[in-house]
Amino acid sequence: MGEFDLIARHFTRPVRRAALGVGDDCALLAPRPGMQLAVTSDMLLEGRHFFPDVDPEALGHKALAVNLSDLAACGAEPLAFTLALALPEADDAWLAAFARGLLALAEQHGCELVGGDTTRGPLAICITAFGEVPAGQALLRSSAQVGDDLYVSGTLGDARLALEALQGRIALPEALLARARQRLERPNPRVALGLRLRGLASSAIDLSDGLAGDLGHVLRASGVGAHLVAERILELIAIKPYLSSADGQFEPDFLLQRAVSGGDDYELAFTAPPAARAAVTEAARQAATPVARIGQIEAAPGLRVVDAAGRALRQAFPSFDHFA
Amino acid sequence: MGEFDLIARHFTRPVRRAALGVGDDCALLAPRPGMQLAVTSDMLLEGRHFFPDVDPEALGHKALAVNLSDLAACGAEPLAFTLALALPEADDAWLAAFARGLLALAEQHGCELVGGDTTRGPLAICITAFGEVPAGQALLRSSAQVGDDLYVSGTLGDARLALEALQGRIALPEALLARARQRLERPNPRVALGLRLRGLASSAIDLSDGLAGDLGHVLRASGVGAHLVAERILELIAIKPYLSSADGQFEPDFLLQRAVSGGDDYELAFTAPPAARAAVTEAARQAATPVARIGQIEAAPGLRVVDAAGRALRQAFPSFDHFA
Repeated sequence: MGEFDLIARHFTRPVRRAALGVGDDCALLAPRPGMQLAVTSDMLLEGRHFFPDVDPEALGHKALAVNLSDLAACGAEPLAFTLALALPEADDAWLAAFARGLLALAEQHGCELVGGDTTRGPLAICITAFGEVPAGQALLRSSAQVGDDLYVSGTLGDARLALEALQGRIALPEALLARARQRLERPNPRVALGLRLRGLASSAIDLSDGLAGDLGHVLRASGVGAHLVAERILELIAIKPYLSSADGQFEPDFLLQRAVSGGDDYELAFTAPPAARAAVTEAARQAATPVARIGQIEAAPGLRVVDAAGRALRQAFPSFDHFA
Repeated sequence: MGEFDLIARHFTRPVRRAALGVGDDCALLAPRPGMQLAVTSDMLLEGRHFFPDVDPEALGHKALAVNLSDLAACGAEPLAFTLALALPEADDAWLAAFARGLLALAEQHGCELVGGDTTRGPLAICITAFGEVPAGQALLRSSAQVGDDLYVSGTLGDARLALEALQGRIALPEALLARARQRLERPNPRVALGLRLRGLASSAIDLSDGLAGDLGHVLRASGVGAHLVAERILELIAIKPYLSSADGQFEPDFLLQRAVSGGDDYELAFTAPPAARAAVTEAARQAATPVARIGQIEAAPGLRVVDAAGRALRQAFPSFDHFA
C-alpha cells in the first residue's frame, strides 16, 4: 500500500469547520471573526516518549492529548490539527489502531484532522493543533499576581509511578499499575476546564515536564515566586491510598518527588485571586474536573515546597529537561 | 545547556505579526479580516530526506523552504511557522548554523517562528507553516480544466542529478555537481509566483515527489488527464547544456526520467487557460521567476509524455512514494 492510499484509508475524514482538509498542498482554516488562533506543536519519539511496544490506539490518543492539553492551558477551543507521521513500515493493523485512538479523541473535542505528512523512518509523530480563543482572552503564563492562589486540576504523580513500574524501578500491584498506566498512556486533556478559566484565572500552564519545572516557567514569566503545600500535593496522587509503605518503597518524600517532579501529568496548573475561590469551584464543577488549591504566589522569586506549618522542605525538585 | 536555554539562545526572536510567539503553551495568530489561514506540515528525517553530514545551515533553509513551497502552491502569503526539533545532542555550533539558515529564509519571506518543541532523539525536523490567503482565492489541485495549458516554474531534475551524484550512482564534474547541489539543498520556494497566480491559474501544486506523481494528484483531483512534451521538459534541466553524453551516462531518456520523476524540485506546476498566456508571462516577469509551458490538460485520464510530433513515449514515469 502506498503513501497516498495509507492517508486515504486511515486518516481522511470529511471536513466540517475547516474550509479545506486532507489532500491539497495546504489545509485552509478560517477562525471566526474576533477569534485568535492558538497554535501548538509537539513531537513524540519512540524510546523517548513511548515504549516500542506501546499500544498504538493509546499512542494515537496520547499524541493528540498532549497538544489539546496545551490548547486547554491557553483557554482555547480545539478546532483542527495536522499530523506528520514517520513510520518504519506501512502496517495496516497498527495504523488502524493508531487512527482509532487519535480520531476518537479528536471527535470528542470537535478537533478535525486537516492535513499533514507521512514518511518512512523510525516511528515519530508530530502533531500541530489549532484552537480558537477570543482576541485578548488567552490564558498566559506571564500574568500571575502576588497573593494569587495556586491550583492544579486532577491528579499528580500517577503517570510517573506507572513509568517507573514499567521500567522495573519500583514494584506496583497489578491493579494499581493498570490504574496508574491509564494516566500515563491516556491523559485526559482539561479542555473544558481551560475554557471556563478564561476571564477567571490570572495565569495557566499545562503540566508535561512536572509541576516544579512547569510552574517555574509561570513564575519566571510573571516575575514572582510561590510556595506549595506538600500535604495537599500528596493527596493528589490517585493511587496513594492503596500504596503500602511497609516495604519502604513509598515513603512520603519519595511520593512527593513523583508528584512535584514526575512529568507526564497533562493537568492544568493555574492561578487566581483569593476573591475568585467560589468562581473557581463553580468552574471546576461545570467542567466536571477536580481542582485543588495547593499553594500561593509570593513576591520572593523561586518555588518553595512547605509542610503544613509553612516550614520549607529541604528536598530539591528537578524538572524534566530533554537536554539536561 | 538545557532545552529551554537552547530555545532561547537560537530560536527566540521578537514577534511582529503574531499576537504571541515562542515561550507560552501556544502561539497566537490572528489572520487579517477576510483571510483564511493556509496550513502545511512536513517532517524531514536524517537518512531519508538528508544525509547525516548535511550542512546544518542548508538543512535549516530546506526544512522551511519545503513548507513555504506548499504555501506558494496555494497562493498564500507566509505568516508564521512552528518548529518541532529532535536532536541527538545539544550541539551549539550545529544549532547556530541550523538557526541561521532557517531564520534567514524566514526573514526573507516575513515568516516568523512562533513556537514549537525540542526533544532528544534521532535528528528529525517537523515544521508547520501558516500563510494568509483571501477567502475563496486559494489555488487548489482540483480545478484544472480540459484545454488548459500546463506550466512549470524554474528548473527540473537538477536536484535528482545531484542526489544520484552524491550517492555515487552517476559522475558529475565538480562545478556541475556544485550547481545541481544548490537545487537539492537550497530550493527556492516560489512564493512570489504563487501570489501572482491567484485568480489566474486554474490549479497549482508544488513539486516534491516528482512532476509525474505530483501532477497525477492534480489530474485525479480535477478528473482530467494531460500530456507533457518531452523536448520542453528536457530544456528545463539547468545543467543539461553542460552534460556530455559521450560516455552514455546522460542520454535523453535518462535525463527525461530525472526531470519527470526526480523529485525534490520544489517548483510550482500549474494550469491556466490559453487566453491567459500573456497574463502568465507577465506574472512570471513580476515574480522574477522563469515559467515554461510544458503541455496541456486533456479529457482522457492519465499522464502522457509525448515527443515534438505528439507521439506518446513508451517510458514509464514512476513517482516517489515513501511506502511503495
